[in-house]
Amino acid sequence: GDGRMGIVYNGADWNFSSRARVTFTLSGTTDNGIEFGGSFRADQAGDSVLDNGAAYGSEGSVYVSGAFGKIEMGDAVSAPEALFGDLPEVGYTDLTSAGGLENDIPYLTGDGVTTLAGNPVVLYTYSTGPISIAASMSDGKLGSVNDQQEYAVAGAYTYENYTVGFGYEMLEDVGGVAGVDYTQGELAGVATFGDTSVKAYFAKGGKQNPVDQAFGLGVTSKFGATTVLGYVQKAEFTAGGDVTWYGLGASYDLGGGASIVGGISDDDLANTDPTADLGVKFKF
Amino acid sequence: GDGRMGIVYNGADWNFSSRARVTFTLSGTTDNGIEFGGSFRADQAGDSVLDNGAAYGSEGSVYVSGAFGKIEMGDAVSAPEALFGDLPEVGYTDLTSAGGLENDIPYLTGDGVTTLAGNPVVLYTYSTGPISIAASMSDGKLGSVNDQQEYAVAGAYTYENYTVGFGYEMLEDVGGVAGVDYTQGELAGVATFGDTSVKAYFAKGGKQNPVDQAFGLGVTSKFGATTVLGYVQKAEFTAGGDVTWYGLGASYDLGGGASIVGGISDDDLANTDPTADLGVKFKF
Amino acid sequence: GDGRMGIVYNGADWNFSSRARVTFTLSGTTDNGIEFGGSFRADQAGDSVLDNGAAYGSEGSVYVSGAFGKIEMGDAVSAPEALFGDLPEVGYTDLTSAGGLENDIPYLTGDGVTTLAGNPVVLYTYSTGPISIAASMSDGKLGSVNDQQEYAVAGAYTYENYTVGFGYEMLEDVGGVAGVDYTQGELAGVATFGDTSVKAYFAKGGKQNPVDQAFGLGVTSKFGATTVLGYVQKAEFTAGGDVTWYGLGASYDLGGGASIVGGISDDDLANTDPTADLGVKFKF
Repeated sequence: GDGRMGIVYNGADWNFSSRARVTFTLSGTTDNGIEFGGSFRADQAGDSVLDNGAAYGSEGSVYVSGAFGKIEMGDAVSAPEALFGDLPEVGYTDLTSAGGLENDIPYLTGDGVTTLAGNPVVLYTYSTGPISIAASMSDGKLGSVNDQQEYAVAGAYTYENYTVGFGYEMLEDVGGVAGVDYTQGELAGVATFGDTSVKAYFAKGGKQNPVDQAFGLGVTSKFGATTVLGYVQKAEFTAGGDVTWYGLGASYDLGGGASIVGGISDDDLANTDPTADLGVKFKF
Repeated sequence: GDGRMGIVYNGADWNFSSRARVTFTLSGTTDNGIEFGGSFRADQAGDSVLDNGAAYGSEGSVYVSGAFGKIEMGDAVSAPEALFGDLPEVGYTDLTSAGGLENDIPYLTGDGVTTLAGNPVVLYTYSTGPISIAASMSDGKLGSVNDQQEYAVAGAYTYENYTVGFGYEMLEDVGGVAGVDYTQGELAGVATFGDTSVKAYFAKGGKQNPVDQAFGLGVTSKFGATTVLGYVQKAEFTAGGDVTWYGLGASYDLGGGASIVGGISDDDLANTDPTADLGVKFKF
Repeated sequence: GDGRMGIVYNGADWNFSSRARVTFTLSGTTDNGIEFGGSFRADQAGDSVLDNGAAYGSEGSVYVSGAFGKIEMGDAVSAPEALFGDLPEVGYTDLTSAGGLENDIPYLTGDGVTTLAGNPVVLYTYSTGPISIAASMSDGKLGSVNDQQEYAVAGAYTYENYTVGFGYEMLEDVGGVAGVDYTQGELAGVATFGDTSVKAYFAKGGKQNPVDQAFGLGVTSKFGATTVLGYVQKAEFTAGGDVTWYGLGASYDLGGGASIVGGISDDDLANTDPTADLGVKFKF
């Protein structure tokens, strides 16, 4: 499980913020060595009265894994997110700026985007030597269980401490409207120099995707028990109205699973203050 | 816990379907040897904000068990279901036909029928030698916590590999309307021949029960790691409109708690396709 | 975890009542010996779709504890409740009278009063020798995340088997109305004589608090495996309409975590019957 407590400046005033969570991790192995399992948090278990959560495929996930790769079903991330992840989380509460922007790379699919009860996302990943590939999809169809459908593929190549990769995502019949399709291609790179790691991406929207292009950079550096991290991202929209947002944070490891974490986050939208927080995080 | 993932044909198109669940099992023994305990799934824990689930008696159950038999309270099954159970589950998702019919024997009471927050069902079971008896009831009363009330009794006699039994159920003031009562009597038999088990029942409705009569047959056969199972049921209504439904399935045990399971389910209602599924099931 | 089952007379008729719950307890220690942890029940985990529960700080709590005292954040009790607690719980279901009154001392703040998602309560407690002090607050502010704000302080002094203490609580902008403030002061005493414990309190409301004054007495006595307990409380309102309520109960320890518990509860409001219950309680 995990927990956290501290204070958050939401752009207008300071507030207390705390939480406690428990994660269930399930695993097993078949007689011929195929691994299987699943994972979800207690607050994602779902409510059998409301038909939501991991018990209905809309949170958490299950997987089967072997020489053929890994197949995961549930609230899986999209293929490019599976290979590149997001930029570093800032602050003990994973801060968002006053405009609601944060460290997540704006992938088009996966990670809850089209995951509903009865409409889980399937993610396939496979690695061999320096090469990793991934594919993901949901099963939506106009007039069926869910109107939207998504597909994504991604590949990455690692040479020593450098990884480069690409991704391509498609979201069809967005909002259940026939013919409204979004696409997005991504290029991403990760480089590690000693205790410093740098991640950069460029994303280019297509079809009716309101995002024309987006790009960002994240850096994480360790100095003993202290980690300093930050990110900056910019999105340009086809309808205009570009926005840049960024975050800067630090954490100090107290040992035993506890750390002191703080950060600040902001964007260049008009009339918004930065947000900030300072608190302790626990891992159990 | 348990999990599953695979694909389901819902009568119109194929969809992904997955889930992950965790079950809590609690038990203890008093100084004089009486056993007690309870059980519920994480998704049945309830939400203390919404006042539902096992924390409010409407899901899961608790029990006390000793030489006097077993008393269970919560979302208990009815007396006849406690002794005879249901017909075999078909498919990795416990398939229902496109008309919503499935392998469950249409008992009148218990198993959630009148179980609400503050209105749990009590089930008493007792076995001695070849004889098993059961009684169940809820505490509803017109104008009280819950308007509906239920009662049921059942008995079974086992001789070698043959079990025969009867059940009688009563549901009073259905829908909170005074004097609208349903009754239902059941006869059931189970026979086991080597690796094959056969279950059959006949149910006869009474008073305002819309079901005039229902009957069904289920068969389960094991061939090494493979199990084949199926059921067929028919219900005849006092208002006409008989319906027959059935299911056929198979599972292959992979060991370690994993199995490949698939099935097909259908009914003779007009304009409906069969439903089918194929996937893997996990037990942890 | 814990469970219970039995029958309850709600003032009108007898009903079955049962429940089953699981509690998660998390703890750890940093390298320099500071303890941290958290606790919540499965039904308090929250629902990540509904943004409630321990995962959002509105139920359960987390803490950090060391030589400096203990800081708890989440659904914490108020400072005076942390030091004095409530009067004894009566009946296996923690009975309330037909008028909704129960054994809880009517503290003004904490314990869910102003705890909402995003607005946890912070409680600080510190003990040294015979002295204990506590302070609690929430972060509400008119027009912010939550309109109401609360503060409370308390102190206690223990001499041999006698403890005396005071508390002061303030709830500002009640119901989000500027200038509607409630205050309340409390005096409390606990005395232990062998197997008998007596607790008494007096509370005096101030500002717009509708309670003018309240006072109560609780007694718990052990006779071997049997415990007898009871309480009586009276509240006087500035607008008139005094009310007295009381409860009397007993429990018998069966060992292994099970006990038989029963009680009766009543108030002097017009036209209400007593409530009563009898059942078994389990601890796992």
